[in-house]
Amino acid sequence: MPPLKDPLLPADDDARILARALLSKARHASLAVTDAETGTPGISLIAFGLDPEGMPMTLISGLAPHLAALRAHPLAAVMVGTPGDRGDPLVHPRLMIRVKASLVPRTAPEHAALRAHWLAIHPKAKLYVDFADFVFARLMPVSALLNGGFGRAWRLTPTDLLKG
Amino acid sequence: MPPLKDPLLPADDDARILARALLSKARHASLAVTDAETGTPGISLIAFGLDPEGMPMTLISGLAPHLAALRAHPLAAVMVGTPGDRGDPLVHPRLMIRVKASLVPRTAPEHAALRAHWLAIHPKAKLYVDFADFVFARLMPVSALLNGGFGRAWRLTPTDLLKG
Repeated sequence: MPPLKDPLLPADDDARILARALLSKARHASLAVTDAETGTPGISLIAFGLDPEGMPMTLISGLAPHLAALRAHPLAAVMVGTPGDRGDPLVHPRLMIRVKASLVPRTAPEHAALRAHWLAIHPKAKLYVDFADFVFARLMPVSALLNGGFGRAWRLTPTDLLKG
Repeated sequence: MPPLKDPLLPADDDARILARALLSKARHASLAVTDAETGTPGISLIAFGLDPEGMPMTLISGLAPHLAALRAHPLAAVMVGTPGDRGDPLVHPRLMIRVKASLVPRTAPEHAALRAHWLAIHPKAKLYVDFADFVFARLMPVSALLNGGFGRAWRLTPTDLLKG
């Protein structure tokens, strides 16, 4: 079989608007990591939000296997956009972002502002945000793919994902 | 900070029943792969179902980047259990399975039976199941982690996931 034609479209304004809407709305995401022990893929559900500059971020428990994975291998991938219970889930729009994770130590100057911002979008996190093993991570986009269903997929750059 | 205590419980019947229910109900899943070109994590939404023996499987387009990834690196991870729009998504039960993918060629003796079984659970796939680039993959469990929310997580073996 000959190689298939690249099905990805270049970014346009419709794609940017859809991607930013998916990012703004998302309160959870799927995270793919390289497992620290095995070097093979691992997957987790994570809490998700944008920091004040529009950068994806999460709050991670020290008990979560993906924290050790991100410490060992900061390159990861995140997916936002949850299919509903009706219709074909594969035509539901979703955004996949390759990211580089950067942990934010509790002693970092920006920690207090991130904490306040996170609690505004994830109020229930006040129950555990101050536990010693919980840590914020910024997920800095490297590249992105927006899939709006069959035949509708776009490559996006980190700049395409930022607020206009 | 000293190493944290292993928070995972051994499998019990409640965990097995919950895991099997999540698997039986799932019609889509998140898939973590090792990207063929970069060797770093990639993530995709996939169609999901169980084959007649209860083995996780999917149907993949040749245009999907995760097909090239699975050909290069068959070890992957899949997550089922979709958080609803209400409540804290992190307390929604989800099952993460490390898998080894095995593609099923169209010429394999079991292809016709898998195709019929898949169309029974994914009737809309009849629109594309016979396209030349679509291929079935079995996702054979290697190990699993069931997360039922904070403080409720179990390690499961492949046998724990099979129908009793």
